[in-house]
Amino acid sequence: MKLYYSAASPYVRKVMMTAIEAGLDKKIEAVPTVVTPTKPNADVARDNPLMKVPTFVTDGGEVLYDSRVICEYLDSLHTGRKLIPISGGERWRALRLQALGDGILDAGILTRYETFLRPEEKRWPDWIQGQLRKVTQGLDAAEQEADAFDSQLDIGQIAIACAIGWLEFRKPAGDIRSGRPKLFKWYEKISRRPSMQTTVPKG
Amino acid sequence: MKLYYSAASPYVRKVMMTAIEAGLDKKIEAVPTVVTPTKPNADVARDNPLMKVPTFVTDGGEVLYDSRVICEYLDSLHTGRKLIPISGGERWRALRLQALGDGILDAGILTRYETFLRPEEKRWPDWIQGQLRKVTQGLDAAEQEADAFDSQLDIGQIAIACAIGWLEFRKPAGDIRSGRPKLFKWYEKISRRPSMQTTVPKG
Repeated sequence: MKLYYSAASPYVRKVMMTAIEAGLDKKIEAVPTVVTPTKPNADVARDNPLMKVPTFVTDGGEVLYDSRVICEYLDSLHTGRKLIPISGGERWRALRLQALGDGILDAGILTRYETFLRPEEKRWPDWIQGQLRKVTQGLDAAEQEADAFDSQLDIGQIAIACAIGWLEFRKPAGDIRSGRPKLFKWYEKISRRPSMQTTVPKG
Repeated sequence: MKLYYSAASPYVRKVMMTAIEAGLDKKIEAVPTVVTPTKPNADVARDNPLMKVPTFVTDGGEVLYDSRVICEYLDSLHTGRKLIPISGGERWRALRLQALGDGILDAGILTRYETFLRPEEKRWPDWIQGQLRKVTQGLDAAEQEADAFDSQLDIGQIAIACAIGWLEFRKPAGDIRSGRPKLFKWYEKISRRPSMQTTVPKG
Protein backbone atom coordinates (compact mmCIF):
# COMPACT_ATOMS: atom_id res chain seq x y z
CA MET A 1 0.00 0.00 0.00
CA LYS A 2 1.27 3.47 -0.82
CA LEU A 3 0.50 6.79 0.84
CA TYR A 4 1.33 10.24 -0.50
CA TYR A 5 2.62 11.60 2.77
CA SER A 6 3.42 14.89 4.44
CA ALA A 7 4.59 15.05 8.06
CA ALA A 8 2.89 18.43 8.45
CA SER A 9 -0.57 17.39 7.21
CA PRO A 10 -3.15 16.69 9.92
CA TYR A 11 -5.22 14.63 7.47
CA VAL A 12 -2.21 12.44 6.72
CA ARG A 13 -1.75 12.13 10.49
CA LYS A 14 -5.34 10.87 10.82
CA VAL A 15 -4.54 8.15 8.29
CA MET A 16 -1.22 7.25 9.94
CA MET A 17 -2.80 7.12 13.41
CA THR A 18 -5.53 4.86 12.06
CA ALA A 19 -2.92 2.65 10.38
CA ILE A 20 -0.86 2.40 13.57
CA GLU A 21 -3.88 1.66 15.77
CA ALA A 22 -4.96 -0.98 13.25
CA GLY A 23 -1.47 -2.53 13.15
CA LEU A 24 -1.07 -1.78 9.45
CA ASP A 25 1.54 0.97 9.37
CA LYS A 26 4.42 -1.35 8.49
CA LYS A 27 2.62 -2.33 5.29
CA ILE A 28 2.38 1.24 4.03
CA GLU A 29 5.03 2.87 1.90
CA ALA A 30 4.98 6.58 2.77
CA VAL A 31 5.97 8.75 -0.21
CA PRO A 32 7.08 12.24 0.91
CA THR A 33 4.95 14.75 -0.95
CA VAL A 34 4.66 18.53 -0.99
CA VAL A 35 1.34 20.04 -2.04
CA THR A 36 0.19 23.62 -1.80
CA PRO A 37 -3.02 25.12 -3.23
CA THR A 38 -1.26 27.51 -5.57
CA LYS A 39 1.25 25.11 -7.13
CA PRO A 40 0.27 22.06 -9.14
CA ASN A 41 1.92 18.73 -8.26
CA ALA A 42 1.96 16.54 -11.36
CA ASP A 43 2.99 13.40 -9.43
CA VAL A 44 0.00 13.51 -7.12
CA ALA A 45 -2.27 14.62 -10.00
CA ARG A 46 -1.66 11.31 -11.75
CA ASP A 47 -3.50 9.56 -8.91
CA ASN A 48 -5.66 12.33 -7.45
CA PRO A 49 -6.89 15.17 -9.69
CA LEU A 50 -7.52 17.28 -6.57
CA MET A 51 -3.75 17.17 -5.82
CA LYS A 52 -4.16 16.73 -2.08
CA VAL A 53 -2.62 14.56 0.58
CA PRO A 54 -3.43 12.02 1.85
CA THR A 55 -3.85 10.06 -1.38
CA PHE A 56 -3.60 6.31 -1.06
CA VAL A 57 -3.02 3.39 -3.42
CA THR A 58 -4.15 -0.10 -2.38
CA ASP A 59 -2.12 -3.24 -3.07
CA GLY A 60 -4.56 -3.88 -5.92
CA GLY A 61 -3.67 -0.51 -7.44
CA GLU A 62 -6.94 1.21 -6.60
CA VAL A 63 -6.59 4.87 -5.65
CA LEU A 64 -8.47 6.14 -2.60
CA TYR A 65 -8.97 9.60 -1.13
CA ASP A 66 -9.74 11.58 1.00
CA SER A 67 -8.68 10.84 4.60
CA ARG A 68 -12.14 9.64 5.63
CA VAL A 69 -12.28 7.08 2.85
CA ILE A 70 -8.72 5.90 3.48
CA CYS A 71 -9.31 5.56 7.24
CA GLU A 72 -12.45 3.52 6.66
CA TYR A 73 -10.63 1.31 4.16
CA LEU A 74 -7.77 0.68 6.62
CA ASP A 75 -10.27 -0.04 9.39
CA SER A 76 -11.82 -2.72 7.18
CA LEU A 77 -8.50 -4.56 6.83
CA HIS A 78 -7.95 -5.64 10.41
CA THR A 79 -9.83 -7.94 12.73
CA GLY A 80 -9.32 -5.99 15.96
CA ARG A 81 -11.79 -3.61 17.56
CA LYS A 82 -13.00 -1.20 14.90
CA LEU A 83 -12.08 2.50 15.11
CA ILE A 84 -15.26 3.30 13.19
CA PRO A 85 -18.07 1.55 15.05
CA ILE A 86 -19.94 -0.67 12.62
CA SER A 87 -23.49 0.55 13.19
CA GLY A 88 -25.97 2.37 15.36
CA GLY A 89 -25.68 5.46 17.54
CA GLU A 90 -22.02 4.79 18.26
CA ARG A 91 -21.22 4.99 14.54
CA TRP A 92 -23.11 8.24 13.93
CA ARG A 93 -21.55 9.84 17.01
CA ALA A 94 -18.03 8.85 15.92
CA LEU A 95 -18.59 10.03 12.34
CA ARG A 96 -20.14 13.31 13.47
CA LEU A 97 -17.20 13.88 15.81
CA GLN A 98 -14.83 13.15 12.91
CA ALA A 99 -16.72 15.77 10.85
CA LEU A 100 -16.27 18.21 13.73
CA GLY A 101 -12.53 17.57 13.87
CA ASP A 102 -12.21 17.83 10.08
CA GLY A 103 -14.33 21.00 10.05
CA ILE A 104 -12.19 22.65 12.74
CA LEU A 105 -9.14 21.77 10.64
CA ASP A 106 -10.63 23.03 7.38
CA ALA A 107 -11.29 26.39 9.03
CA GLY A 108 -7.87 26.43 10.69
CA ILE A 109 -6.12 25.61 7.43
CA LEU A 110 -8.03 28.31 5.53
CA THR A 111 -6.93 30.74 8.25
CA ARG A 112 -3.32 29.68 7.80
CA TYR A 113 -3.48 30.05 4.02
CA GLU A 114 -4.92 33.53 4.52
CA THR A 115 -2.35 34.67 7.06
CA PHE A 116 0.73 32.87 5.73
CA LEU A 117 0.47 31.93 2.06
CA ARG A 118 -1.53 34.89 0.69
CA PRO A 119 0.27 38.18 -0.05
CA GLU A 120 -0.24 40.52 2.87
CA GLU A 121 -2.18 43.21 1.01
CA LYS A 122 -4.73 40.66 -0.16
CA ARG A 123 -5.70 39.34 3.26
CA TRP A 124 -9.30 39.88 4.34
CA PRO A 125 -9.98 40.33 8.06
CA ASP A 126 -13.68 39.33 7.76
CA TRP A 127 -12.66 35.99 6.27
CA ILE A 128 -10.08 35.32 8.99
CA GLN A 129 -12.57 36.25 11.68
CA GLY A 130 -15.26 34.00 10.18
CA GLN A 131 -12.96 30.98 9.95
CA LEU A 132 -11.53 31.52 13.43
CA ARG A 133 -15.06 31.62 14.83
CA LYS A 134 -15.60 28.13 13.45
CA VAL A 135 -12.36 26.95 15.08
CA THR A 136 -13.25 28.50 18.43
CA GLN A 137 -16.85 27.31 18.48
CA GLY A 138 -15.77 23.87 17.30
CA LEU A 139 -13.26 23.54 20.13
CA ASP A 140 -15.85 24.80 22.62
CA ALA A 141 -18.25 22.10 21.43
CA ALA A 142 -15.50 19.49 21.86
CA GLU A 143 -14.89 20.80 25.41
CA GLN A 144 -18.57 20.27 26.18
CA GLU A 145 -18.38 16.70 24.91
CA ALA A 146 -14.99 15.76 26.27
CA ASP A 147 -16.38 14.06 29.39
CA ALA A 148 -18.26 11.69 27.13
CA PHE A 149 -15.26 10.77 24.99
CA ASP A 150 -15.16 7.06 25.43
CA SER A 151 -12.07 5.49 26.91
CA GLN A 152 -12.18 3.36 23.77
CA LEU A 153 -10.47 5.16 20.94
CA ASP A 154 -12.50 5.88 17.80
CA ILE A 155 -12.12 7.86 14.58
CA GLY A 156 -13.90 10.84 16.11
CA GLN A 157 -11.32 11.15 18.87
CA ILE A 158 -8.51 10.61 16.37
CA ALA A 159 -9.83 13.50 14.25
CA ILE A 160 -10.19 15.84 17.24
CA ALA A 161 -6.70 14.92 18.45
CA CYS A 162 -5.20 15.61 15.01
CA ALA A 163 -7.04 18.94 14.86
CA ILE A 164 -5.67 20.01 18.24
CA GLY A 165 -2.17 18.78 17.40
CA TRP A 166 -2.14 20.79 14.19
CA LEU A 167 -3.61 23.94 15.79
CA GLU A 168 -0.83 23.81 18.39
CA PHE A 169 1.78 23.19 15.66
CA ARG A 170 0.81 26.04 13.32
CA LYS A 171 -0.99 28.26 15.84
CA PRO A 172 -3.42 29.99 13.41
CA ALA A 173 -5.78 30.52 16.36
CA GLY A 174 -3.15 31.34 19.00
CA ASP A 175 -3.54 29.69 22.41
CA ILE A 176 -6.42 27.24 22.35
CA ARG A 177 -6.05 25.68 25.83
CA SER A 178 -7.49 28.45 27.93
CA GLY A 179 -11.05 27.72 29.12
CA ARG A 180 -11.04 24.13 27.85
CA PRO A 181 -9.78 22.06 30.81
CA LYS A 182 -11.69 18.84 30.06
CA LEU A 183 -10.68 18.74 26.42
CA PHE A 184 -7.01 19.20 27.25
CA LYS A 185 -7.08 16.71 30.11
CA TRP A 186 -8.32 14.17 27.55
CA TYR A 187 -5.79 15.44 24.97
CA GLU A 188 -2.88 14.94 27.36
CA LYS A 189 -4.00 11.37 27.86
CA ILE A 190 -4.50 10.51 24.18
CA SER A 191 -1.15 12.20 23.39
CA ARG A 192 0.65 9.43 25.28
CA ARG A 193 -0.42 6.81 22.76
CA PRO A 194 2.37 5.61 20.42
CA SER A 195 0.13 6.46 17.45
CA MET A 196 0.18 10.11 18.57
CA GLN A 197 3.81 10.21 19.67
CA THR A 198 5.21 8.82 16.41
CA THR A 199 3.12 11.18 14.25
CA VAL A 200 3.89 14.54 15.88
CA PRO A 201 3.71 17.13 13.05
CA LYS A 202 6.96 18.38 11.52
CA GLY A 203 7.87 20.59 8.62
CA MET B 1 -36.19 14.72 11.14
CA LYS B 2 -35.01 18.28 10.58
CA LEU B 3 -32.62 19.66 7.99
CA TYR B 4 -31.08 23.12 7.95
CA TYR B 5 -31.67 23.75 4.30
CA SER B 6 -30.54 26.05 1.52
CA ALA B 7 -31.81 25.61 -2.05
CA ALA B 8 -28.48 26.93 -3.37
CA SER B 9 -26.21 24.54 -1.45
CA PRO B 10 -24.89 21.56 -3.43
CA TYR B 11 -24.20 19.68 -0.20
CA VAL B 12 -27.81 20.13 0.89
CA ARG B 13 -28.80 18.90 -2.55
CA LYS B 14 -26.75 15.74 -2.01
CA VAL B 15 -28.69 15.09 1.18
CA MET B 16 -32.06 15.84 -0.44
CA MET B 17 -31.31 13.63 -3.44
CA THR B 18 -30.32 10.83 -1.09
CA ALA B 19 -33.51 11.34 0.94
CA ILE B 20 -35.67 11.30 -2.20
CA GLU B 21 -33.96 8.23 -3.65
CA ALA B 22 -34.39 6.51 -0.27
CA GLY B 23 -38.08 7.50 -0.06
CA LEU B 24 -37.52 9.55 3.08
CA ASP B 25 -37.94 13.14 1.90
CA LYS B 26 -41.51 13.48 3.18
CA LYS B 27 -40.29 12.79 6.70
CA ILE B 28 -37.81 15.66 6.68
CA GLU B 29 -38.69 19.16 7.79
CA ALA B 30 -36.54 21.52 5.74
CA VAL B 31 -35.69 24.71 7.65
CA PRO B 32 -34.61 27.50 5.26
CA THR B 33 -31.20 28.70 6.38
CA VAL B 34 -28.71 31.28 5.18
CA VAL B 35 -25.05 30.77 6.03
CA THR B 36 -22.04 32.60 4.71
CA PRO B 37 -18.44 32.27 5.92
CA THR B 38 -18.12 35.84 7.07
CA LYS B 39 -21.37 36.14 9.06
CA PRO B 40 -22.17 34.03 12.09
CA ASN B 41 -25.56 32.29 12.21
CA ALA B 42 -26.54 31.77 15.84
CA ASP B 43 -29.46 29.44 15.00
CA VAL B 44 -27.27 26.95 13.17
CA ALA B 45 -24.49 27.41 15.74
CA ARG B 46 -26.73 25.95 18.43
CA ASP B 47 -26.65 22.61 16.60
CA ASN B 48 -23.46 22.84 14.56
CA PRO B 49 -20.52 24.94 15.82
CA LEU B 50 -19.13 25.03 12.27
CA MET B 51 -22.28 26.92 11.14
CA LYS B 52 -22.64 25.09 7.87
CA VAL B 53 -25.48 23.52 5.95
CA PRO B 54 -26.50 20.77 5.72
CA THR B 55 -26.95 20.19 9.45
CA PHE B 56 -29.43 17.51 10.41
CA VAL B 57 -31.36 16.54 13.55
CA THR B 58 -32.67 12.98 13.91
CA ASP B 59 -36.07 12.15 15.39
CA GLY B 60 -34.20 11.20 18.54
CA GLY B 61 -32.70 14.71 18.71
CA GLU B 62 -29.18 13.73 17.73
CA VAL B 63 -27.38 16.25 15.54
CA LEU B 64 -25.49 15.01 12.49
CA TYR B 65 -23.21 16.72 10.00
CA ASP B 66 -21.66 16.99 7.44
CA SER B 67 -23.37 15.84 4.20
CA ARG B 68 -21.45 12.56 4.05
CA VAL B 69 -22.54 11.56 7.54
CA ILE B 70 -26.15 12.62 6.94
CA CYS B 71 -26.32 10.74 3.62
CA GLU B 72 -25.00 7.58 5.23
CA TYR B 73 -27.46 7.91 8.10
CA LEU B 74 -30.39 8.31 5.69
CA ASP B 75 -29.16 5.37 3.64
CA SER B 76 -29.27 3.24 6.81
CA LEU B 77 -32.97 4.00 7.38
CA HIS B 78 -34.47 2.32 4.33
CA THR B 79 -34.63 -1.27 3.18
CA GLY B 80 -34.25 -0.63 -0.56
CA ARG B 81 -31.06 -0.94 -2.58
CA LYS B 82 -28.34 1.00 -0.78
CA LEU B 83 -26.90 4.16 -2.34
CA ILE B 84 -23.67 3.50 -0.46
CA PRO B 85 -22.70 -0.08 -1.26
CA ILE B 86 -22.26 -1.99 1.98
CA SER B 87 -18.79 -3.42 1.44
CA GLY B 88 -15.98 -4.32 -0.91
CA GLY B 89 -14.62 -2.65 -4.01
CA GLU B 90 -18.01 -1.18 -4.89
CA ARG B 91 -18.08 0.71 -1.60
CA TRP B 92 -14.57 2.15 -1.93
CA ARG B 93 -15.21 3.18 -5.51
CA ALA B 94 -18.46 4.94 -4.58
CA LEU B 95 -16.89 6.68 -1.58
CA ARG B 96 -13.85 7.76 -3.57
CA LEU B 97 -16.12 9.12 -6.29
CA GLN B 98 -18.09 11.00 -3.63
CA ALA B 99 -14.79 12.47 -2.37
CA LEU B 100 -14.03 13.54 -5.95
CA GLY B 101 -17.41 15.26 -6.30
CA ASP B 102 -17.06 16.93 -2.90
CA GLY B 103 -13.48 17.98 -3.71
CA ILE B 104 -14.52 19.54 -7.03
CA LEU B 105 -17.21 21.42 -5.14
CA ASP B 106 -14.89 22.57 -2.35
CA ALA B 107 -12.56 24.05 -4.96
CA GLY B 108 -15.46 25.56 -6.94
CA ILE B 109 -16.95 27.13 -3.81
CA LEU B 110 -13.59 28.59 -2.76
CA THR B 111 -13.34 30.08 -6.25
CA ARG B 112 -16.77 31.63 -5.90
CA TYR B 113 -15.98 33.08 -2.47
CA GLU B 114 -12.83 34.57 -3.96
CA THR B 115 -14.50 36.07 -7.03
CA PHE B 116 -17.85 37.05 -5.53
CA LEU B 117 -17.77 37.48 -1.76
CA ARG B 118 -14.27 38.90 -1.27
CA PRO B 119 -13.62 42.60 -1.92
CA GLU B 120 -12.16 43.01 -5.37
CA GLU B 121 -8.81 44.44 -4.33
CA LYS B 122 -8.16 41.45 -2.05
CA ARG B 123 -8.59 38.76 -4.68
CA TRP B 124 -5.55 36.63 -5.44
CA PRO B 125 -5.19 35.29 -8.99
CA ASP B 126 -2.81 32.46 -7.92
CA TRP B 127 -5.44 31.15 -5.50
CA ILE B 128 -8.20 31.27 -8.11
CA GLN B 129 -5.98 29.54 -10.66
CA GLY B 130 -5.01 26.81 -8.17
CA GLN B 131 -8.61 26.07 -7.19
CA LEU B 132 -9.83 26.12 -10.80
CA ARG B 133 -7.15 23.62 -11.71
CA LYS B 134 -8.62 21.23 -9.15
CA VAL B 135 -12.08 21.75 -10.66
CA THR B 136 -10.85 21.20 -14.21
CA GLN B 137 -8.71 18.16 -13.42
CA GLY B 138 -11.48 16.72 -11.27
CA LEU B 139 -14.00 17.02 -14.10
CA ASP B 140 -11.49 15.54 -16.54
CA ALA B 141 -11.06 12.56 -14.22
CA ALA B 142 -14.85 12.16 -14.07
CA GLU B 143 -14.97 12.25 -17.88
CA GLN B 144 -12.45 9.41 -17.98
CA GLU B 145 -14.57 7.37 -15.59
CA ALA B 146 -18.00 8.24 -16.95
CA ASP B 147 -18.27 5.12 -19.11
CA ALA B 148 -17.95 3.03 -15.97
CA PHE B 149 -20.62 4.90 -14.03
CA ASP B 150 -22.96 2.12 -13.19
CA SER B 151 -26.53 2.34 -14.39
CA GLN B 152 -27.34 1.78 -10.72
CA LEU B 153 -27.27 5.08 -8.87
CA ASP B 154 -24.86 5.45 -5.97
CA ILE B 155 -23.59 8.22 -3.68
CA GLY B 156 -20.59 8.80 -5.93
CA GLN B 157 -22.77 9.60 -8.91
CA ILE B 158 -25.04 11.76 -6.72
CA ALA B 159 -22.02 13.78 -5.58
CA ILE B 160 -20.69 14.24 -9.13
CA ALA B 161 -24.15 15.25 -10.36
CA CYS B 162 -24.52 17.82 -7.56
CA ALA B 163 -21.07 19.19 -8.34
CA ILE B 164 -21.91 19.62 -12.03
CA GLY B 165 -25.32 21.11 -11.24
CA TRP B 166 -23.77 23.69 -8.94
CA LEU B 167 -20.92 24.54 -11.34
CA GLU B 168 -23.51 25.23 -14.04
CA PHE B 169 -25.63 27.26 -11.59
CA ARG B 170 -22.87 29.56 -10.27
CA LYS B 171 -20.42 29.23 -13.16
CA PRO B 172 -17.19 29.86 -11.21
CA ALA B 173 -15.34 27.83 -13.86
CA GLY B 174 -17.24 29.09 -16.92
CA ASP B 175 -18.31 26.49 -19.48
CA ILE B 176 -17.49 23.01 -18.23
CA ARG B 177 -19.12 20.91 -21.00
CA SER B 178 -16.57 21.35 -23.72
CA GLY B 179 -14.31 18.31 -24.15
CA ARG B 180 -16.33 16.12 -21.77
CA PRO B 181 -18.91 14.37 -23.96
CA LYS B 182 -19.23 11.15 -21.94
CA LEU B 183 -19.66 12.92 -18.63
CA PHE B 184 -22.39 15.16 -19.98
CA LYS B 185 -24.16 12.35 -21.78
CA TRP B 186 -24.40 10.63 -18.41
CA TYR B 187 -25.35 13.94 -16.72
CA GLU B 188 -28.23 14.49 -19.12
CA LYS B 189 -29.52 11.06 -18.24
CA ILE B 190 -29.21 11.40 -14.46
CA SER B 191 -30.76 14.88 -14.71
CA ARG B 192 -34.06 13.31 -15.72
CA ARG B 193 -34.49 11.62 -12.33
CA PRO B 194 -37.13 13.22 -10.09
CA SER B 195 -34.49 13.51 -7.33
CA MET B 196 -32.50 15.81 -9.64
CA GLN B 197 -35.44 17.67 -11.13
CA THR B 198 -36.99 18.62 -7.78
CA THR B 199 -33.69 19.83 -6.34
CA VAL B 200 -32.46 22.15 -9.08
CA PRO B 201 -30.45 24.90 -7.31
CA LYS B 202 -32.10 28.27 -6.71
CA GLY B 203 -31.17 31.39 -4.85
